[in-house]
Amino acid sequence: MHFQNDLLLKAAKAETTQRTPVWLMRQAGRILPEYRKVRAIAKDFKTLVKTPELAAEVTIQPVDILGVDAAIIFSDILVIPEAMGLNYEMEESKGPVFPKCIMSPADLSGIHVAQAEELHYVLDAIKLTKRQLNGRVPLIGFSGAPWTIFSYMVEGGGSKTFSKAKKMLYTQPEFSHRLLTMITESTINYLKGQITAGADIVQIFDSWAGILSPEQYAEFSLKYIARICDAIDNAPTIVFAKGAYFAREEMNKLHCQVIGMDWNMDIQESRKMMPDKILQGNLDPCALYGSLDDVKRETRKMIDAFGPRRHIANLGHGLYPDIEVDKVKCFIDTVKEYSSSAR
Amino acid sequence: MHFQNDLLLKAAKAETTQRTPVWLMRQAGRILPEYRKVRAIAKDFKTLVKTPELAAEVTIQPVDILGVDAAIIFSDILVIPEAMGLNYEMEESKGPVFPKCIMSPADLSGIHVAQAEELHYVLDAIKLTKRQLNGRVPLIGFSGAPWTIFSYMVEGGGSKTFSKAKKMLYTQPEFSHRLLTMITESTINYLKGQITAGADIVQIFDSWAGILSPEQYAEFSLKYIARICDAIDNAPTIVFAKGAYFAREEMNKLHCQVIGMDWNMDIQESRKMMPDKILQGNLDPCALYGSLDDVKRETRKMIDAFGPRRHIANLGHGLYPDIEVDKVKCFIDTVKEYSSSAR
Repeated sequence: MHFQNDLLLKAAKAETTQRTPVWLMRQAGRILPEYRKVRAIAKDFKTLVKTPELAAEVTIQPVDILGVDAAIIFSDILVIPEAMGLNYEMEESKGPVFPKCIMSPADLSGIHVAQAEELHYVLDAIKLTKRQLNGRVPLIGFSGAPWTIFSYMVEGGGSKTFSKAKKMLYTQPEFSHRLLTMITESTINYLKGQITAGADIVQIFDSWAGILSPEQYAEFSLKYIARICDAIDNAPTIVFAKGAYFAREEMNKLHCQVIGMDWNMDIQESRKMMPDKILQGNLDPCALYGSLDDVKRETRKMIDAFGPRRHIANLGHGLYPDIEVDKVKCFIDTVKEYSSSAR
Repeated sequence: MHFQNDLLLKAAKAETTQRTPVWLMRQAGRILPEYRKVRAIAKDFKTLVKTPELAAEVTIQPVDILGVDAAIIFSDILVIPEAMGLNYEMEESKGPVFPKCIMSPADLSGIHVAQAEELHYVLDAIKLTKRQLNGRVPLIGFSGAPWTIFSYMVEGGGSKTFSKAKKMLYTQPEFSHRLLTMITESTINYLKGQITAGADIVQIFDSWAGILSPEQYAEFSLKYIARICDAIDNAPTIVFAKGAYFAREEMNKLHCQVIGMDWNMDIQESRKMMPDKILQGNLDPCALYGSLDDVKRETRKMIDAFGPRRHIANLGHGLYPDIEVDKVKCFIDTVKEYSSSAR
């Protein structure tokens, strides 16, 4: 495929680029009025996720409106538990809620390893998006990391401590590994399906990495991420494990190209710990609450700290819904201008 | 004062002890049926905090029932904003809620720097507890760190991202420093008052340390913790900054004796980064969900990793309310037995 802009893919392959590529986690979403219009047509979040035409439309919006160097398919990490047989509802104020959750080995009989075809609506959205993008920028596919998906399946929703999910690791380690294996296999099928459908690069989100001890993280999360990375051999992979600062040296050994960093992680220290990786991140999303001058200053500081090579600019977390569009644009424009001039 | 058991104070002064002292964050609380009885008499949480006789009773319960090496005064970090003029309510399921919060410089006119006397009910509870303990074990006083208190005052309650509080740091840094200074002065008055009333050692809890970038943490949190540590010169001080792994080298410079660690922090690495400090912690509270054998094994592993000196055993966070009492006892007994035999 010929791209008009393949900065992201070049950077992910450690090739030199004329400037630092930039995209944002949650770039397609509530910050854009254009998104909110489509969201209103879809009525609810899950309909939007399951309607390829609408999902493709909101996926492409930030490419047009914000000028990012990549699109990321509009979807949700919880499509995996659903495809495995565990339905969820998205409540506007509370976030995801699972009416039934996994509480004991007996509950495994109600779920199965998902095949990519069971997530045909995501694959269709990817195909449609690719056609409509027509090579303007690459398309990012994604999934949750097995530990994060496991947390939701056991906890039944979000939580401050995820103590039910962690309790399971301590009290039923064998059962936990069985469930994690099922999620891992489903995720491999799903990500391979996304790549076949047209995703140019995939990101694995381990949103709840930071609540595990280093030892448990190695055993119950990183091992499964490694298995996924080993299985994905036809597209570059990004691993974003929020809060897993303690696992950086281990993450350097993953069979992936890019590591996403949150804003707590020191950039120099991370470079030393992950010398083999392209680093992605890591401005604090709250920095975009500042004035335009503040945003410019903080963005330049970030670019300086990462240096001109082996970096994909992003935030250290998803955009918050009340961040103003002009601040987001300012971040993107500053990355583009400043990283061009800095070379 | 003559103590029957002053292991905690000796350890905090880096003196050799015949075994590792142990206490637990939230040791007085919902895990104990005896606590729940007193709580029922008090009707609501705030009445319990504000009634010295009842607060003293629940403070001493874990000394009798669990055999910990210290009592910690039963109270709440949010008594400080309340004494400053910002009332809060404790809602059973939601946690603290502030009907009015600090949103702009104009709101500062409604609050003031608190004097210790305004928190007379805590000081009275400390005096009563000290009389009733009669030297059995030391009594720990405590407060929130200014940044954590600031977060609640601006956010109006708990939050996943504390984005309102962080927004304030980015958009109104000067105003943020003014509010942080007021909280810091109130906290110094309060902790000095606690020590005069009889607290033998004090702990500063920075519960929301982990949501700031290293740079913002230095500017908006650690600076104020340092000011408090500098002002407290008549009792040892413990600083527990949850998630502030990135600030460990800086924390080694604080004028405090003990640093509390969460369970994400690697013990060897922390020893290297904080060679001048006694370390406190750091078992994952969820480890107490395991079997008694699991608890013993994990506790011994922790004791081995810290070694026999310069350690105060604790969890890496407060006890969760659904942890069973016999698991908590097992943790405490294992620390006592294993750390005695290991010498």
